[in-house]
Amino acid sequence: MAQKKTASPRQTTAKKRTARPRKFVYFFGEGKADGGAHLKNLLGGKGANLAEMAGIGIPVPAGFTITTEVCTYFQKRKSYPVGLKKQVETAVRKIERAMGAKFGDPKNPLLISVRSGARVSMPGMMDTVLNIGLNDRTIQGIIAKTGNERFAADAYRRFVNMYGDVVMGVRPRTEKEHDPFEEIMDRLKADRGALLDLDLTADDLKLLVRRFKALVKRRLRRPFPEDPYEQLWGGIGAVFESWDVPRAVSYREIHGIPGDWGTAVNVQAMVFGNMGDDSATGVAFTRDPATGENYFYGEYLKNAQGEDVVAGIRTPQPLNRAKKVPRGVKTLDREFPRLYKQLDGIRLKLERHYTDMQDVEFTIQQGKLWMLQTRTGKRTALAAVKTAVDMVTERLINKATAVLRIDPETLDQLLHPRLDPKAAPKAVAQGLPASPGAGVGQAVFSAVDAEAWAKDGQKVILVRHETSPDDIRGMNAAQGILTSRGGMTSHAAVVARGMGTPCVAGCGDIHVDYTKERFVTKGGVSVKKGDWITLDGAKGEVYQGQLPTIAPTLTGDFRTFMGWVDEFMKLGVRTNADTPHDAAVARSFGAEGIGLCRTEHMFFEGHRIDAVREMILADDEKGRRRALKKLLPMQRRDFIGIFEAMAGLPVTIRTLDPPLHEFLPHTKAEINDLARKMKVKPRKIADKVADLDEANPMLGLRGCRLGIAYPEITEMQARAIFEAACAVTRKKKKVLPEIMIPLVGHVNELKRQKDVVIKTAEAVFAEQKTRVDYLVGTMIELPRAALTADQIATEAEFFSFGTNDLTQTTFGLSRDDAGKFLPSYVAQGILPHDPFVSIDVDGVGALVAMGVRKGRATRPKLKIGICGEHGGDPMSVAFCHQVGLDYVSCSPFRVPIARLAAAQAKLMEKQTVERDV
Amino acid sequence: MAQKKTASPRQTTAKKRTARPRKFVYFFGEGKADGGAHLKNLLGGKGANLAEMAGIGIPVPAGFTITTEVCTYFQKRKSYPVGLKKQVETAVRKIERAMGAKFGDPKNPLLISVRSGARVSMPGMMDTVLNIGLNDRTIQGIIAKTGNERFAADAYRRFVNMYGDVVMGVRPRTEKEHDPFEEIMDRLKADRGALLDLDLTADDLKLLVRRFKALVKRRLRRPFPEDPYEQLWGGIGAVFESWDVPRAVSYREIHGIPGDWGTAVNVQAMVFGNMGDDSATGVAFTRDPATGENYFYGEYLKNAQGEDVVAGIRTPQPLNRAKKVPRGVKTLDREFPRLYKQLDGIRLKLERHYTDMQDVEFTIQQGKLWMLQTRTGKRTALAAVKTAVDMVTERLINKATAVLRIDPETLDQLLHPRLDPKAAPKAVAQGLPASPGAGVGQAVFSAVDAEAWAKDGQKVILVRHETSPDDIRGMNAAQGILTSRGGMTSHAAVVARGMGTPCVAGCGDIHVDYTKERFVTKGGVSVKKGDWITLDGAKGEVYQGQLPTIAPTLTGDFRTFMGWVDEFMKLGVRTNADTPHDAAVARSFGAEGIGLCRTEHMFFEGHRIDAVREMILADDEKGRRRALKKLLPMQRRDFIGIFEAMAGLPVTIRTLDPPLHEFLPHTKAEINDLARKMKVKPRKIADKVADLDEANPMLGLRGCRLGIAYPEITEMQARAIFEAACAVTRKKKKVLPEIMIPLVGHVNELKRQKDVVIKTAEAVFAEQKTRVDYLVGTMIELPRAALTADQIATEAEFFSFGTNDLTQTTFGLSRDDAGKFLPSYVAQGILPHDPFVSIDVDGVGALVAMGVRKGRATRPKLKIGICGEHGGDPMSVAFCHQVGLDYVSCSPFRVPIARLAAAQAKLMEKQTVERDV
Repeated sequence: MAQKKTASPRQTTAKKRTARPRKFVYFFGEGKADGGAHLKNLLGGKGANLAEMAGIGIPVPAGFTITTEVCTYFQKRKSYPVGLKKQVETAVRKIERAMGAKFGDPKNPLLISVRSGARVSMPGMMDTVLNIGLNDRTIQGIIAKTGNERFAADAYRRFVNMYGDVVMGVRPRTEKEHDPFEEIMDRLKADRGALLDLDLTADDLKLLVRRFKALVKRRLRRPFPEDPYEQLWGGIGAVFESWDVPRAVSYREIHGIPGDWGTAVNVQAMVFGNMGDDSATGVAFTRDPATGENYFYGEYLKNAQGEDVVAGIRTPQPLNRAKKVPRGVKTLDREFPRLYKQLDGIRLKLERHYTDMQDVEFTIQQGKLWMLQTRTGKRTALAAVKTAVDMVTERLINKATAVLRIDPETLDQLLHPRLDPKAAPKAVAQGLPASPGAGVGQAVFSAVDAEAWAKDGQKVILVRHETSPDDIRGMNAAQGILTSRGGMTSHAAVVARGMGTPCVAGCGDIHVDYTKERFVTKGGVSVKKGDWITLDGAKGEVYQGQLPTIAPTLTGDFRTFMGWVDEFMKLGVRTNADTPHDAAVARSFGAEGIGLCRTEHMFFEGHRIDAVREMILADDEKGRRRALKKLLPMQRRDFIGIFEAMAGLPVTIRTLDPPLHEFLPHTKAEINDLARKMKVKPRKIADKVADLDEANPMLGLRGCRLGIAYPEITEMQARAIFEAACAVTRKKKKVLPEIMIPLVGHVNELKRQKDVVIKTAEAVFAEQKTRVDYLVGTMIELPRAALTADQIATEAEFFSFGTNDLTQTTFGLSRDDAGKFLPSYVAQGILPHDPFVSIDVDGVGALVAMGVRKGRATRPKLKIGICGEHGGDPMSVAFCHQVGLDYVSCSPFRVPIARLAAAQAKLMEKQTVERDV
Repeated sequence: MAQKKTASPRQTTAKKRTARPRKFVYFFGEGKADGGAHLKNLLGGKGANLAEMAGIGIPVPAGFTITTEVCTYFQKRKSYPVGLKKQVETAVRKIERAMGAKFGDPKNPLLISVRSGARVSMPGMMDTVLNIGLNDRTIQGIIAKTGNERFAADAYRRFVNMYGDVVMGVRPRTEKEHDPFEEIMDRLKADRGALLDLDLTADDLKLLVRRFKALVKRRLRRPFPEDPYEQLWGGIGAVFESWDVPRAVSYREIHGIPGDWGTAVNVQAMVFGNMGDDSATGVAFTRDPATGENYFYGEYLKNAQGEDVVAGIRTPQPLNRAKKVPRGVKTLDREFPRLYKQLDGIRLKLERHYTDMQDVEFTIQQGKLWMLQTRTGKRTALAAVKTAVDMVTERLINKATAVLRIDPETLDQLLHPRLDPKAAPKAVAQGLPASPGAGVGQAVFSAVDAEAWAKDGQKVILVRHETSPDDIRGMNAAQGILTSRGGMTSHAAVVARGMGTPCVAGCGDIHVDYTKERFVTKGGVSVKKGDWITLDGAKGEVYQGQLPTIAPTLTGDFRTFMGWVDEFMKLGVRTNADTPHDAAVARSFGAEGIGLCRTEHMFFEGHRIDAVREMILADDEKGRRRALKKLLPMQRRDFIGIFEAMAGLPVTIRTLDPPLHEFLPHTKAEINDLARKMKVKPRKIADKVADLDEANPMLGLRGCRLGIAYPEITEMQARAIFEAACAVTRKKKKVLPEIMIPLVGHVNELKRQKDVVIKTAEAVFAEQKTRVDYLVGTMIELPRAALTADQIATEAEFFSFGTNDLTQTTFGLSRDDAGKFLPSYVAQGILPHDPFVSIDVDGVGALVAMGVRKGRATRPKLKIGICGEHGGDPMSVAFCHQVGLDYVSCSPFRVPIARLAAAQAKLMEKQTVERDV
């Protein structure tokens, strides 16, 4: 009986499935929609938002979305699931009803577009096919409906060109070959003596259509499809296939988008912005995506197709005069005042609906406004922070939402250097302020060069007429991007803002010559490949040479925002700083202490290295002590400076860590130099270098092993710390030194070094007649330390996870050597990400969690932090919050990022708890 | 109420403690004893056995033992616990009663000895003081009692000499100075024209006593103590202090004896073997400690002190004629037939009582036999095995006891090479067969040289008149020991047997000249420092040059014993073997399969390295495949050989592991050579070498990372394996290949490589129209692999712990570099032992246990082994048994050791279980 009971509902479900086939197609239009924004994973961002817009009564050309599930299916089997064909045909008939036209009808033809739409926007990465449904018969209907033969013929030649290229693959066959369609067109233009495309007549364009079709037939030995449905399926297939073209794959790699998400396909009725002067097309943001200012920001082109705006070939006009507009330039609010008002209303409706800044595309077809797309607008960090702060003031969102809304990683942009205003440079050219920040680099004129030069460690500015999706890797490698054409929403501008790279776009002041690899400004300044230039992306200015920059500060909206961050965060954020300067910078960004002060960096300063080398070359303890005595006052001064800069906040100081050979010269010439300087025989130094040489220095005589071999080094460092602490204490200032022993693998190592520290502390306190509170703890940076954390905690008063080394040893992976294969591991998906960037939760993370659990089992109130570079990585910060660390420590400029990540981790936890309740 | 109940018994105990002070002194004598063998930790081996002997009615001079607890107390505070003094005095009075003499009585004086006695025997390492109680008054009593003035005076001068040296520290003050006591004696002998000590008269000896006392007073500015109790306490203190003298500390280091065990002190009535011709002293073993043969084995000296036998200065006489005795040599059974019979009876009583072979010391004082010591006899492995097997036959012990009794590590001795009998060499000298085995090395004449030469990688034979405890380190470093003096129980013989080092002792055929650093045989052959000689420790023969040796085999008692081992062991034992020869050897020692076959070792053979280098230098996959094609038939041949040698037992083959630069030359000359040979420019090779250079090769491009970068390598290796397996299968022989992917850190790495292996297998099976069963598994040798073993087990069909690398990464310790500090870590007690020798249970062991648990959670029947060098270390084998591994794998010659360790682990577990039940 029991078995029957459980068995029967299953059978019913199975029957139901057979009865109602899976829904692959979601219709939208006429104020209704099958889907909505909540179905983003299934319908992609674009499709979900088209459905959402249609659902809230915004005028959207009717259409339907084929789900991402179909893409995944298609990727695996190169075929479509059963039932899709019928669903698509039904949906096409719905579009016909909604738009009052018929697909393939020679009298009243419906034209449709096929567009990609993934979960997250991948601008320009995948294929699009427009004007599907055009053939030798339907063109007559278009001519009849528009009374514009040239428009119809132009649409037809665009369609055959695009379809022939994208769907049928008629392209240059070698790198040297020109585009075959363009070649045919160029030949005809030459024959006709035409300069521009616009100089060609309707008949010329029809002739082009014939020649294009002949080209296709010659190449593929089959005719260009005339059947509208055949065209449609070809377009759908091309979009699905474009998910896996190399440029899309590399975009996903850069942005961490999984390959199995797939794209949806949006099939939608065409509307035309190029049907004459009562038509236009535009792109807009509900707020300024560069600054976040709350005004309607956007551009349009009259009598143009939508792609023309984004492609950056013509420089478009602004929507309005909220910002200064050059003399003679027209704006939408003056050219189409009624439609501008309607559009502005839609802007406000969308922001209220989505409670976030939107990026929209619109088309005006013969006086009617259609919205083609809305999505969350990409913005600079500056804009993101301002928008978040403003929207809280406007009561659109609350503080928690504001804090959760900003990707911590993007704050990095606000921490980029700006041009030093005191330098007061004179710009040599002025363009659009497309993406803020100061970019300093050597000019290069191709994305390939940009990538190659950057790989060699050079800083470059990529200079192009305009950029295209193929340039993505080069753009990512550049310090800044400068284009001579295109507007604020051009490819270069959008992508640069997404990457946080400074960009000056549409800089008509310069003439770019790819062949000579140089550009010349209107003022006659010539900049050739390799010359240094500087961009001010916030002002849109270009300068010659390398201009001085200044460090960023935490002010204005950013300060307000970080104040809210502090209200939510539980995990503390400290900084890794080795100098009073770094310490002060980090404090200004909100660091609550120093989590790692590396004393060895101090050893390289000025003449100190001489004393260090003298110590290393000493034959015995006496000689070492003599040299250490010279270092003592210098280290003491360092610590006094750091203690004063941190004003009573805890300062974790790590004793000497690197292998001693790092302090010695290695080439013959350097050795001879040093020998002269030290008045010893070069042989002696060479012998010492050879003696200290190690097969695997990462796993050699370093960390506490040094301090155990030469306790006098630890003793000197401890003495410098305690003498400094006493000196600062005497000035009635608070000091909180935490002495950290590195590379401990066995509790006995820590015990030995702790004994030296305590003994030295007591000696100094007695001499100075002052006492200072201090802690002695250890780095947990070896697997064995984590595994035996319970034992180590009997001696350690705090732990700090050194996840750089812990990652190296846990993976058995030398960071110095991994460059040869680790990138390929990530690219191949063997590892989900670089474990030196984001903590490896399953492996290294398991050791961290174990270390915390075992450490606190012995010493329940054990203070635990992390001081590897993961401390500044948002994903890793979230992990640190989850496993219950007390603080993370990161480089000064990543402190705000870590703070935001910490606050988000806490908020997410709260949300999870609330969801669970 | 409940509280009261638990509280009251505690109070009672506390009261009792106050009432009865701690017992520090244990008396024995007159057929009674406070202690016994069960109190070994407290009384030391010697004390416990003296008590035990006294308890079973064996004639033992009365005495008492001061416990090891007092030593520990003394070490820490340099003072004695309260109550000791009174207990000692009471015990002295008991001795007086038992022996019928009085301590310090001028008429009937009692003389006593003070000797060390740790838990385990440390022969000759610590101090001893004899004849305590002698002074200018008591000597008269001794003369009166013995009627032998010369004997008394001799005892007195020995006492003052020994006490002055050992207790009062009157010794040479510089290395060049002679012993001051000896110098005085030599001067007197010169004055008297005496050749031997025996030529001195009683008056001469008395004069020596006076001069010795004057020497002490001159040096120390205080007189030699006359008070017997003062003498006694001085002696006790000297013995406790000698626990920490350098030679004792280094002995403990070599033998792994903890410093905090401490030594007991045995205070015992003196008996004299030098009271005339009715006196003698001897050392005996109840069976032959070199061969294990069951006859009464030992030596004695008539009219001699006990120390004379062990010190090896006079060559003593055998107890009996069980073995051939040189003409003219007398034996105890003929000289003292009655006492020999009594002694032989005691021998049997002791063996029955202890059920083990005993090492005894005895003294005959004026016709009365006294037993001074019994302890478990040190023996060679050969003797240990024979004794164990014989005692099972004799029904003294059962098989389990036999198996538990033998230290697995000592079996190594049976696996040492023997001299090849076919070589039929002619000995140049004949000595005593003191410790078996063949020793081949260069002659050196001091322990210091032996240690230094061995450190430089040279093989040495230490040649000495006799050895002393100061020579321990040199003896340990030598391949063999040759002494011109001393018997089978001399220091050299006992220590060499303990170490398993071949030794020819008492070789009167040679004359050793330390000054000229050479020895000359009776036959006139001269051997100087650095000349090669060969020892046959089993025959006691010395040969010139390096003689050929042959590998050991498993035969006779050893085979019988290993048969019993097999009855008890549960853990399997495989071998690490890369050649058919090694595989065959290991099988003959009982290996149940190959646990690790390193394919890269094959790459170095003959001309193969050329093809390997061609592969490395290839510019592309095509070039690599061309080179790999040349390697394929060679690897296939290797595997056919190995599969046939293992005859159906499983063979685990590891794919290529080391970084490629290991196969390339590195010096300029080598590079030029190779360039000529390969007909490429040296630059090309040098560039490749530079390109492959790594900062930390241990953590670089190696293991499966190679196979992922160059799948064609894995493919070739898999093809060689499967083609070989098919070839052997076709001959109707069974094959069980297990392909092991090294250095896996993430399951995806294994998955990729497994895919290559499976694809290749299917291709080969299709080509060959044969199928072969096989497994694909992985090394667990990175912490991350152990931490994510559950994930890895989804792909792995077996695990093999590579504990060498796992130890390196867990500790962050490069084996190549650790030599600089690891020995000092062990010496300082920071680490309890070298983790590369015995597995680090807390750290590495925790990962192994985790790997087993997680791996079996995913795949309950997962086969798991270990193939690091720990697989041959008994302590580690026990650990492997405990955590439930299926097998260990070790080098062929350690297979019997691992098997014995496995059997013992199982037996110990059973005992634990039985104890718990």
